[in-house]
Amino acid sequence: MAKKVILDLDTGIDDALALAYTLGSPELELIGVTATYGNVLVETGARNDLALLELFGRADVPVFIGEPHALAKDSFEVLEISAFIHGNNGIGEAVVPDAQAAPQEQGAVDFLIESVKKYGDELVIIPTGAMTNIATAIKKDPTFAENAHIVFMGGALTVPGNVSPWAEANINQDPEGADIMVRNSNDITMIGLDVTLQTLLTYEETKQWRALGTPAGTFLADATDYYIKAYDTTAPHLGGCGLHDPLAVGVAVDPSLVTTLPINLKVDTEGATRGRTIGDETRLNDPVKNAKVAVAVDVERFLAEFMERIGRVARGL
Amino acid sequence: MAKKVILDLDTGIDDALALAYTLGSPELELIGVTATYGNVLVETGARNDLALLELFGRADVPVFIGEPHALAKDSFEVLEISAFIHGNNGIGEAVVPDAQAAPQEQGAVDFLIESVKKYGDELVIIPTGAMTNIATAIKKDPTFAENAHIVFMGGALTVPGNVSPWAEANINQDPEGADIMVRNSNDITMIGLDVTLQTLLTYEETKQWRALGTPAGTFLADATDYYIKAYDTTAPHLGGCGLHDPLAVGVAVDPSLVTTLPINLKVDTEGATRGRTIGDETRLNDPVKNAKVAVAVDVERFLAEFMERIGRVARGL
Repeated sequence: MAKKVILDLDTGIDDALALAYTLGSPELELIGVTATYGNVLVETGARNDLALLELFGRADVPVFIGEPHALAKDSFEVLEISAFIHGNNGIGEAVVPDAQAAPQEQGAVDFLIESVKKYGDELVIIPTGAMTNIATAIKKDPTFAENAHIVFMGGALTVPGNVSPWAEANINQDPEGADIMVRNSNDITMIGLDVTLQTLLTYEETKQWRALGTPAGTFLADATDYYIKAYDTTAPHLGGCGLHDPLAVGVAVDPSLVTTLPINLKVDTEGATRGRTIGDETRLNDPVKNAKVAVAVDVERFLAEFMERIGRVARGL
Repeated sequence: MAKKVILDLDTGIDDALALAYTLGSPELELIGVTATYGNVLVETGARNDLALLELFGRADVPVFIGEPHALAKDSFEVLEISAFIHGNNGIGEAVVPDAQAAPQEQGAVDFLIESVKKYGDELVIIPTGAMTNIATAIKKDPTFAENAHIVFMGGALTVPGNVSPWAEANINQDPEGADIMVRNSNDITMIGLDVTLQTLLTYEETKQWRALGTPAGTFLADATDYYIKAYDTTAPHLGGCGLHDPLAVGVAVDPSLVTTLPINLKVDTEGATRGRTIGDETRLNDPVKNAKVAVAVDVERFLAEFMERIGRVARGL
């Protein structure tokens, strides 16, 4: 039986790749996309989710709009660096028509809570943007943190951050929200820069999608090339773009892709290192660890899985 | 055949325990102690090393005086917090008479270089203070970093530091020196706060040493009680004192006591997080990793080993 999945996306180019990875994985059944903010405004993210679901032939998947800003703030603006990496429209200035479908009336937080109640251990939630929807669900329903299974893209434990030497972009959007999530969730796996900067994609791979001549293939190639080009400027030592969000989906399908360290995590919300993910020293000797942080990844196997699954979507589902 | 060992100590209460652990380990042959600074001035450390070697019945082990201050500084003063934790004399105000032996004429750096040339793979160096002696040896002899085997106490990768939320005390003494060491050493194992704050000692254990009624047992109990008392103030959540330096010796005897993560490390020498140990993002995808960081420890087995070995020294060698 396929594992049920909710993607919590701020779409975003690598979010689009995560969406394609999910749709191209027969092991997963995408029951909904919840929109968050980060790479884009929450409304832009929801628009992109709907447009891409239609482009990928899965207009049946419902999209839910989430919280528009961080717990400790009352608004959100896209950072200049986010627009540089993902384009002003979030998908590398690629033109994808608006979908016919509209977002659901129900909000993202209520859908998340309802789905965890309904599906329990059959469901995995994959947040890849600001963690505000998850934190809000935890605050609203005391059973959510206990029963949700979460694999999130975000954080950096053994390497520096990407928006500062200590903070990773998703965590940095809402440190308070991320802290609530990592401290309280009963089962949470962190897919951070420790591993996602090891899984790199180059123009060699995107060429294969473009060569297909399909609308999906052309979009995936165009958007990803935009992303790789931004990486050429922001992180030239890498020689490609990091497959951040798709790796979280990859691990949801197959946890054996990564080696994890059991740990009790916290997010620094005060002081110089605000936004840092780090072990909670006050729970260091607690024998129960609620989080697992990926510290190594089977790069070759993941890239093969990635190309196979994105390939399915690029060819047309 | 016993493994040859050089301890590079800033003695220091837990350095004294590391010294006892080494002398109580039949698997190790201590060929010399090199003095560094940190918990104390380098001269105080050398004095304590000589005095404790005599107290422990091993006045035959030579002591070498090392660099007096960090690479980037021209002097060193003991921090208030160090004096609080280790006492003004470094050994918890315990009174141990000066030794009859004097330090060697040869300096610590030359002894380190000479020993690596002479013993190669038979030798392990265990630095537990400021890493300036090691960095100076690396700078002076290009073959040193290639051939030395190092197991050091210092740093914090997955937990916050202890002198700031990002810096551990030994690394903080000389970030430039520590950076040279972790980047260049061909074989280096980091025993940091990640694991040493899991290996805790309490008054229950020190009581057993005092009950022996020997000079060594009384000293070990008095000094360690001073140390535990300081921890009661600085880290009351722990419920004991961290066995920092002894764990590095424990791992030199038996690497299987810890689980390690292969990584290419750096030390931040600039910016807000100066003194932090973290993965070097520019070498993240280098398949060759020169360092191993301990991220988990078999606490029970280590404590049993610790009590057995310190017990031998406390009873009188």
